[in-house]
Amino acid sequence: MTKPFSFHLIATDGAARAGEVETAHGRIATPAFMPVGTQATVKAVTVDDVARTGADILLANTYHLMLRPGPERVAALGGLHRFMNWPKPILTDSGGFQVMSLSQLRKIDEHAVTFRSHLDGNMYELSPERAVEIQRLLGSDIAMQLDECLRLPATRDEIERAMQLSLRWAERSKRAFEGAKPGYALFGIVQGGDDPALRVESARALVGMDFQGYAIGGLAVGEPQAVMLAMIETVAPELPADRPRYLMGVGTPDDILKSVARGIDMFDCVMPTRAGRHGLAFTRFGKINLKNARHAEDHRPLDETSDCPATRDYSRAYLHHLVKSNELLGAMLLTWNNLAYYQNLMQDIRTSIEAGRFSERAGEIQEAWVKGDIPAL
Amino acid sequence: MTKPFSFHLIATDGAARAGEVETAHGRIATPAFMPVGTQATVKAVTVDDVARTGADILLANTYHLMLRPGPERVAALGGLHRFMNWPKPILTDSGGFQVMSLSQLRKIDEHAVTFRSHLDGNMYELSPERAVEIQRLLGSDIAMQLDECLRLPATRDEIERAMQLSLRWAERSKRAFEGAKPGYALFGIVQGGDDPALRVESARALVGMDFQGYAIGGLAVGEPQAVMLAMIETVAPELPADRPRYLMGVGTPDDILKSVARGIDMFDCVMPTRAGRHGLAFTRFGKINLKNARHAEDHRPLDETSDCPATRDYSRAYLHHLVKSNELLGAMLLTWNNLAYYQNLMQDIRTSIEAGRFSERAGEIQEAWVKGDIPAL
Repeated sequence: MTKPFSFHLIATDGAARAGEVETAHGRIATPAFMPVGTQATVKAVTVDDVARTGADILLANTYHLMLRPGPERVAALGGLHRFMNWPKPILTDSGGFQVMSLSQLRKIDEHAVTFRSHLDGNMYELSPERAVEIQRLLGSDIAMQLDECLRLPATRDEIERAMQLSLRWAERSKRAFEGAKPGYALFGIVQGGDDPALRVESARALVGMDFQGYAIGGLAVGEPQAVMLAMIETVAPELPADRPRYLMGVGTPDDILKSVARGIDMFDCVMPTRAGRHGLAFTRFGKINLKNARHAEDHRPLDETSDCPATRDYSRAYLHHLVKSNELLGAMLLTWNNLAYYQNLMQDIRTSIEAGRFSERAGEIQEAWVKGDIPAL
Repeated sequence: MTKPFSFHLIATDGAARAGEVETAHGRIATPAFMPVGTQATVKAVTVDDVARTGADILLANTYHLMLRPGPERVAALGGLHRFMNWPKPILTDSGGFQVMSLSQLRKIDEHAVTFRSHLDGNMYELSPERAVEIQRLLGSDIAMQLDECLRLPATRDEIERAMQLSLRWAERSKRAFEGAKPGYALFGIVQGGDDPALRVESARALVGMDFQGYAIGGLAVGEPQAVMLAMIETVAPELPADRPRYLMGVGTPDDILKSVARGIDMFDCVMPTRAGRHGLAFTRFGKINLKNARHAEDHRPLDETSDCPATRDYSRAYLHHLVKSNELLGAMLLTWNNLAYYQNLMQDIRTSIEAGRFSERAGEIQEAWVKGDIPAL
């Protein structure tokens, strides 16, 4: 019999938390970074190699999968885990964010959002109930409520209206999720833009509904980092300590360190994978642009101390050559390196929280980025 | 101390031969298929995964590498094996074929071929001596003489002129190769188009120069398979039994079976890698086009009996989804599958030659292709 979905704290260090989420498909050590597998694939890397980087959980996008291949088809094929050959936990978003950023002719009313597919022009309707149904068909370990996510800046009235609609949709999502099998969870999403009072109101209302976890949405959409951090500081104290907290769509390694310091447990972002397809490598020494001609004769790997083959076994000169030659292997190796870097960073964070030296370790990590790369010999 | 380059036969079965080539970077079991790593990468697959398919040797293209990153730079970086992180044998072509097919404003005279780079418009000269020098800078275990490769059909006069020029270039290439370290070899290339008398003349002259191996060039350039096989039948008996025979740029699995039956030991072709990037899978059941909608709900992997993860661990429905979605992982998995299929085929060929049942086994393999894929349940 599957264990129920659960979260427990292993250690805290200031506001930073190390913990463990238990799901139908296994455990997630937190703070956790979730690589993004938009169309049921983490771009340019196999699931076996994603697993080798240490990732416990992937994120997949409901919007893309509802359009192609379709949730009913994925269910008939045994669910998303089997479809993409990833036996570990999967979180799906609700589709709302991407309906609003990718689709055309969308119309939002109390009932649902209606939109035209960017693929074939067909009309689709996404209601809170359908978003939950899709995520159950996919078999997501962690599903997200449908919400309305505005771009900042927006007026206070717009932000409040969207936040209140998202709360009503949260209730409907929760009702639709009733009867889910043990080990599966639905998270509510705190909205409220950059307005602290609205954020608090949203958080308290959601906590009153008793979700299994809480996300902070509507950030990392263009606002300054200081605004994002202020909103986390406003919201985190409102959330129960015994539930995981997920900051959606974040972020840079620096965003992650600063958000963990403020009590966040889970992250997702396309940054490591997208950057990998554009010639950028994340390393202990900061970000390295492999397009730069200074790498053309550099024997050194990105980081000889890494246990990731992509990071350790190929020279910067070779990576430069691949990127300049538009070879797929360049995207593959840099994506793999970047995912390994992010997972090593999360492991480093967890270890230092457990050791009670998170803030010291975060300082060391940031110092190494600032110091930058060692010049070639 | 490195052993000298050598070839010995393990078994023969009719004209088919199983053998072993010894090079500076290790052994090659023959008949061998060499995956093509044009720009110092086998497109869309890591060298570790290429090695896992069972490939003993890769081919890299001198033309591409002389233009970018340049042979002197590769040499400064420790040679091509180290550059691309492939410790096993490498064969390079001479660059001649691609100068003639890819570059503009080429001019051939007795001394060399002069051409304009397709990358940056700079002028380059490739002489037999420079082709050998480049391949030594790259560190190729097996280098090829510079030759002039015509497209068929061509007049007998054109074919004869190019063949005679290639013979004079063979002599110059051989002189230029003198003093190479033990374990490294230079192969001569038999030319002569589709003219048996010219082919025999070319083969005899090259054998008189005593090369360490012999290639058959100028085939698989658009002529019918029957012409190609007739030329192999003409040339193979002229070649010494104790030297490896390499059929350049070939081919389909069927071409390989029929060429092995006529005494060929080595092959290279972009087919498995290129087809993998275009949604085509080679399998025991023949070629499968994953773009086809009939795969959209097919649970089955390409071949559940395979030991290649790409072949065994992903459903056809998922591969179809990846191909339709233009996801890089589709190209990655199908390339990997195709290389594994080719290497499994070569292993099957070698085993059956050693068991004295090659012709029977070749018949079974061809029958399975013709029978085709098992319909979905």
